[in-house]
Amino acid sequence: MWALRPWTRYTLLVIAHMLAMGLGAAVLQALESPPALQFQMKLKAELAAFQAEFGACLPHGALEELLGMALRAQGHGVSTLGNHSEASNWDLPSALLFTVSILTTTGYGHMAPLSAGGKAFCVVYAVLGLPASLALVAALRHCLLPVLSRPGAWIASRWQLAPSQAALLQATGLGLLVAGTFVLLPALVLWGLQRDHSLLEAIYFCFGSLSTIGLGDLLPGSGQNLHPVIYQLGQFALLGYLLLGLLAMLLAVETFTKLPQVCAMVKFFGASTPVTAEDQDGIVSQDELALNNLPPATPASKQALACRQASDDCK
Amino acid sequence: MWALRPWTRYTLLVIAHMLAMGLGAAVLQALESPPALQFQMKLKAELAAFQAEFGACLPHGALEELLGMALRAQGHGVSTLGNHSEASNWDLPSALLFTVSILTTTGYGHMAPLSAGGKAFCVVYAVLGLPASLALVAALRHCLLPVLSRPGAWIASRWQLAPSQAALLQATGLGLLVAGTFVLLPALVLWGLQRDHSLLEAIYFCFGSLSTIGLGDLLPGSGQNLHPVIYQLGQFALLGYLLLGLLAMLLAVETFTKLPQVCAMVKFFGASTPVTAEDQDGIVSQDELALNNLPPATPASKQALACRQASDDCK
Repeated sequence: MWALRPWTRYTLLVIAHMLAMGLGAAVLQALESPPALQFQMKLKAELAAFQAEFGACLPHGALEELLGMALRAQGHGVSTLGNHSEASNWDLPSALLFTVSILTTTGYGHMAPLSAGGKAFCVVYAVLGLPASLALVAALRHCLLPVLSRPGAWIASRWQLAPSQAALLQATGLGLLVAGTFVLLPALVLWGLQRDHSLLEAIYFCFGSLSTIGLGDLLPGSGQNLHPVIYQLGQFALLGYLLLGLLAMLLAVETFTKLPQVCAMVKFFGASTPVTAEDQDGIVSQDELALNNLPPATPASKQALACRQASDDCK
Repeated sequence: MWALRPWTRYTLLVIAHMLAMGLGAAVLQALESPPALQFQMKLKAELAAFQAEFGACLPHGALEELLGMALRAQGHGVSTLGNHSEASNWDLPSALLFTVSILTTTGYGHMAPLSAGGKAFCVVYAVLGLPASLALVAALRHCLLPVLSRPGAWIASRWQLAPSQAALLQATGLGLLVAGTFVLLPALVLWGLQRDHSLLEAIYFCFGSLSTIGLGDLLPGSGQNLHPVIYQLGQFALLGYLLLGLLAMLLAVETFTKLPQVCAMVKFFGASTPVTAEDQDGIVSQDELALNNLPPATPASKQALACRQASDDCK
């Protein structure tokens, strides 16, 4: 089956991806054009009404100039309105949240460096910090995955599940746990704290943060004139949430990518030469030898190893 | 050496990371507080001057209300000023760029969905689309890495380099190629096209995009009142740049993480049980058997395999 040359297959995959992007863009356009247009019309009407009412005493262009400056300022996280203390833009919690949003590649963009020095520092800091963060996550993964896989292994041995079923059960359990603990629960808390946002908006914010998309709209606490102490505590909470949540999300993703079922799919699309059953057996028995300092390999881990090998050996 | 228990070692690593974050935040605060404060003071002065001059004919709060609405609108990508055509917020190129910024997790945030439907669609689209994008990148990696590693292999065999040196040379070459082609070159082009931005700002934008941080300040073409056709072409160019550049960046990162030198470092921090030379030899010879449909394994690939195995077997 699928007797296509690898390059043809890859081209088809890329085209399918492009089509999915086009479809997404078309749906978003259909959903978002009307409200955006409506918002813009309303804004223009307000502006026109303002100028019709007070234009007589305002020189031409004075209002536009002021608006332009306020908008540019907001783009850099400098707030125009509100009663924040004057130094609140780059207070330590905000600066820490900004640093974490750089290191996790979330990049909300609610604030951004203004000076050339700040921009240069951001680039250098990310060039050094991103590999270090990746290495830290890799190290923590090694240390946490065995702990997290214990309940699944216990259930599998208790219910005598087939290896692939046990792996799927474990990954699904971890996925649901992470989604519940780091998306649904924080969204509910956020919804409870900020009643002017809907639950959907809270989920949208939490999911957008942990997927590192970080659009930065609906950032909790922004534009609400909160007491500085509460605002700063909120920034610290968000910071801890980002770090812990992202680690949990990466662990869940890692568990899913190691699933035999997922590997089989990657093999189906990715492998340029079919792997024979004989090859796989060979690999498994050799990997077992290599793992002689671990508990006896369960069939599930055998399958995962064979799969890792199979997906690696077409590199 | 490093006779610490694994958990102590991990805790120390995490603490070191936290300290690095604190240091980054402190430097950014020192660099950015003065210009941000200065900008804010200037803005407040302008606002005060405006109100002193024209306040007599403006009712209290009217200007603040207008400003607040314009700032909220900008947060959703709805432009207040400028002569854009009215439908330009979610035209097809902009919607496509937004979709790509979601799928690559860059999330500039220069526009964001306003409607509940748009937000729900974004979440569902990302939940389905991000794993698909990851799978596509994995498949393309399998297909492109062998091609990209050919020049390195040729140089290594020609100059008779040691395996680890050859791997390092190859990774460095690929890294420099990607940095040159996808950061420096586009930054130079951007700098040439937008003379109001400095070269540092162009590099900051390109690096911020490909690292998927995507702060969204300094987005090319925004707020410049470009001709719609040129603006849309620019959006398409940015879209293609993001997709190609990110793929190249991921390939380079993948090559670096497979380096024997990097693996040795991960092993140093991550492995909970030391891997003996005997184990490693065993693994290598077994992996060679498994790779019998590939050209004879070079010592470099042996080392890489041993390293992968060593870093995998403490999972």
